Amino acid sequence: GLGLWTSVSALVNTWRVFMWCGKLLVIPIDGSHWLSTLPVVEKLRDKGHEIVVVAPEINLRIHSSPVYTLKTYPVSYTKEFVEAEFKEMGQRSFTPQPFLKKLSKIASFTSMFLDSCKRLLSDKELIQYLEGSKFDAIFMDPFFPCGQILAEHLSLPSVYFLRGLPCSVEFQATMCPSPPSYVPRFFTRSTDRMSFGQRLGNLLATLGSSLACSVLYSPYDPLIREFLQREATVPELFSHAAVWLMKYDFVFEYPRPLMPNMVLVGGIVLSCSLLVPLPFQREFEAMVNASGEHGIVVFSLGSMVSEIPMKKAMEIAEGLGTVPQTVFWRYTGKAPPNLPKNVKLVKWLPQNDLLAHPKTRAFITHGGSHGVYEGICNAVPMVLMPLFGDQMDNAKRVESRGAGLTLNILEMTSADISNALKAVINDKTYKENIQRLSDLHLDRPIHPLDLAVHWVEFVMRHKGAPHLRPAAHDLNWVQYHSLDVIAFLAAVTLLFLFISFKCCLCCCRRCCGKKGEAV
Amino acid sequence: GLGLWTSVSALVNTWRVFMWCGKLLVIPIDGSHWLSTLPVVEKLRDKGHEIVVVAPEINLRIHSSPVYTLKTYPVSYTKEFVEAEFKEMGQRSFTPQPFLKKLSKIASFTSMFLDSCKRLLSDKELIQYLEGSKFDAIFMDPFFPCGQILAEHLSLPSVYFLRGLPCSVEFQATMCPSPPSYVPRFFTRSTDRMSFGQRLGNLLATLGSSLACSVLYSPYDPLIREFLQREATVPELFSHAAVWLMKYDFVFEYPRPLMPNMVLVGGIVLSCSLLVPLPFQREFEAMVNASGEHGIVVFSLGSMVSEIPMKKAMEIAEGLGTVPQTVFWRYTGKAPPNLPKNVKLVKWLPQNDLLAHPKTRAFITHGGSHGVYEGICNAVPMVLMPLFGDQMDNAKRVESRGAGLTLNILEMTSADISNALKAVINDKTYKENIQRLSDLHLDRPIHPLDLAVHWVEFVMRHKGAPHLRPAAHDLNWVQYHSLDVIAFLAAVTLLFLFISFKCCLCCCRRCCGKKGEAV
Repeated sequence: GLGLWTSVSALVNTWRVFMWCGKLLVIPIDGSHWLSTLPVVEKLRDKGHEIVVVAPEINLRIHSSPVYTLKTYPVSYTKEFVEAEFKEMGQRSFTPQPFLKKLSKIASFTSMFLDSCKRLLSDKELIQYLEGSKFDAIFMDPFFPCGQILAEHLSLPSVYFLRGLPCSVEFQATMCPSPPSYVPRFFTRSTDRMSFGQRLGNLLATLGSSLACSVLYSPYDPLIREFLQREATVPELFSHAAVWLMKYDFVFEYPRPLMPNMVLVGGIVLSCSLLVPLPFQREFEAMVNASGEHGIVVFSLGSMVSEIPMKKAMEIAEGLGTVPQTVFWRYTGKAPPNLPKNVKLVKWLPQNDLLAHPKTRAFITHGGSHGVYEGICNAVPMVLMPLFGDQMDNAKRVESRGAGLTLNILEMTSADISNALKAVINDKTYKENIQRLSDLHLDRPIHPLDLAVHWVEFVMRHKGAPHLRPAAHDLNWVQYHSLDVIAFLAAVTLLFLFISFKCCLCCCRRCCGKKGEAV
Repeated sequence: GLGLWTSVSALVNTWRVFMWCGKLLVIPIDGSHWLSTLPVVEKLRDKGHEIVVVAPEINLRIHSSPVYTLKTYPVSYTKEFVEAEFKEMGQRSFTPQPFLKKLSKIASFTSMFLDSCKRLLSDKELIQYLEGSKFDAIFMDPFFPCGQILAEHLSLPSVYFLRGLPCSVEFQATMCPSPPSYVPRFFTRSTDRMSFGQRLGNLLATLGSSLACSVLYSPYDPLIREFLQREATVPELFSHAAVWLMKYDFVFEYPRPLMPNMVLVGGIVLSCSLLVPLPFQREFEAMVNASGEHGIVVFSLGSMVSEIPMKKAMEIAEGLGTVPQTVFWRYTGKAPPNLPKNVKLVKWLPQNDLLAHPKTRAFITHGGSHGVYEGICNAVPMVLMPLFGDQMDNAKRVESRGAGLTLNILEMTSADISNALKAVINDKTYKENIQRLSDLHLDRPIHPLDLAVHWVEFVMRHKGAPHLRPAAHDLNWVQYHSLDVIAFLAAVTLLFLFISFKCCLCCCRRCCGKKGEAV
């Protein structure tokens, strides 16, 4: 019957979609970026796809694995150098830095990436291997722009995975409108509700970031010319991305316009709603239970910060001593001598498990987006001590929603720490607000990990997503803003007014003239 | 252990989300709109929610049902009047109409809605019942703006379900950027790739539609004042909607910016991918099998068109006679005397089942969005004969993607029909293009019906979705476009230039003067 036909064709379609297996090239970034990339890679492997990861031979976290084939390329730096860089980056946050020194550090990071890119693209053997492998798509972190140069060379559609890019080039590259009147730029520390002065600052930041973008990515221009044999800038290449997977959602980020090829996958690597029982932590459970009715506080400044200057550490310890809660402080540096009894220093802690525990009262964090999402997901009010990068902006977002308090790590005293911690623990509005954010964040039609995997597979199956690419990309700046059309309308209007005026004048004169004659 | 805690809290959360049942008010629109609303209502009922539907007592398709409680309100027109209006609307499409007459017809429809609204709001008993029922949200078709007035009165969050609204007020109400340079306005028949002239027309259409909006919705202003005791326009009220469920996707619509509270649910009521076996149609199956290797063509101008002027019907019949395929023509009017042997007139046909059949070669449709999605979903190339409303634009979208051909129903000859039909059947590119669209459309992470149900439930559970509301709503036109900031910057720059110029002048004069003295 007809019904049967419908079923059969639907079945065939379903089978085709579910059983298709492809080959994926992954260009990740080392460190915390890789930690959120790995679960996506693992899930894609579970679905049967073959995965090749290309990474520098010197790295901290990207190891060989049965999940993927790891291909490495030589780099000019040593493991010790990378470790020292990361360590220094963490420590620098605790001492005031002149702006130019900060800028020179960013430049040194950029040049490290540029150097890696040069070495990757000039590794003939690796490039030949990649050319020979028939990949369906490339899955990459655009923070390392080299992936897109490779994608162009191999004619592969690309899927990006990111929290945000320097100078917000992601919105420029996707032609996504970002009105500066209510979309705060990074590093301005504004919310989406701005005063006149803040809107002024935001507009200037918008102009400044365009400039910063061209400066930041210009060193890649010769590399692109040499390797792709054509003229293009990095933002131009970025505009070819098929799908952008953004690691945030509107519980955390301020509502703003998005383009069809931007998919929000905030909270992608969290298991707080996944019903995954984790291994039993006897050591921590005993300590948590011993905390009594006051419960616990979880304190971690992330994996980048291993040591804190002793003076600062002692102030923090003093502040923590003023609350009745047991504080678990993840810290590998030297213990401050004034460490109070209620503070337990640990080299590592099961952060997500501890945050999920009903006895947890507060979370002291540096405000990395991963940690913030763990706090949101488990509904734990936060005290934020942002260190660098997007952490100031992340902290501002949590604070503006009444779900936490932000401290300036350079200026805070032990009293500030104590007051902030007591406030988020004792003032019920913080808990209510974070609970509301948590409820909203977890109430979603599909898990962000499944969504991310779907879109990577989509791009693999259909060799891109050209139906999501707006025609705006074919327009120049003047055309996009309809300035030529407006100029034409203005010219026509002026011409019409001018002719009307002339006609009137002419008529008047003739009338007057005739009258004059008559008289 | 900690893992257990994680699991328990996650389980509780899951249970809370899945088992929660609420009460929903539905304000639908009669006719084809109701056909796509009903499946959402049925699925929400399946989930355990209590549903109350409020409709005019005179309607064609909204009947009592065990799925929902139907509450009706009296209206001033009769069933015969509505049927005659619909019939006339269909027939008018076949005769050229002067623009003013078209406009007066739209006005008559608007006044019918306005009259219904007045009667609904003045039905004291019904309003009292609604006030007494504790609803969690309202699910409505904003084509009938009365629902939002009721939502404001009952302080309920609202979810909208729509294909599009007159004068594109949905983008105005959501503060969604729609650059006129590549987002074609309705009724302009432009694609997203426009010439200078088309962009000019599109900009003028943008300006015109703002004007049309205020004219079209102004009759509601006194009603709002009277019933809500405050001043507001319909577009202002629309801006309070929590979530907009849009019945399209980017396989059909051109890529454009969207706001966070817009959810695309194109193809929502289709079963082509749902594996639902439909009742056996013995009569049709025999005819389909008898069609042999040439296969069949499905021809329907929708439920609104029951009769076609005889002259036009004869031309159509002549055109259909030139192809070797068996044509199923859904038509309730008088059979044209020249009806060829290969054309079977039927009063009703299982459209989706026939389109899903592998023997189907082409689909002749009026281009209603429901029919177009059935064509896309089953990958059948189309010949489009748009009649009114959004059908011209729908046809343009299918044609611009090379998946069908559009005919002008007023001007087409039998030769045109024959050529168009032969082209889409014999030129393989049409089949390839529609197959590609179909693959893209069906490859989605979640079925649009589940997505729609999720968002209605989301708004019910959280009493709205304020976290998706952009701060742009708090800005006036000047602030939104940063015109005040730009004016300030310009003033400061001019002042700076003026002072610099004056200083220079002063210096020069002094220098010259001194020189003069020295000489």
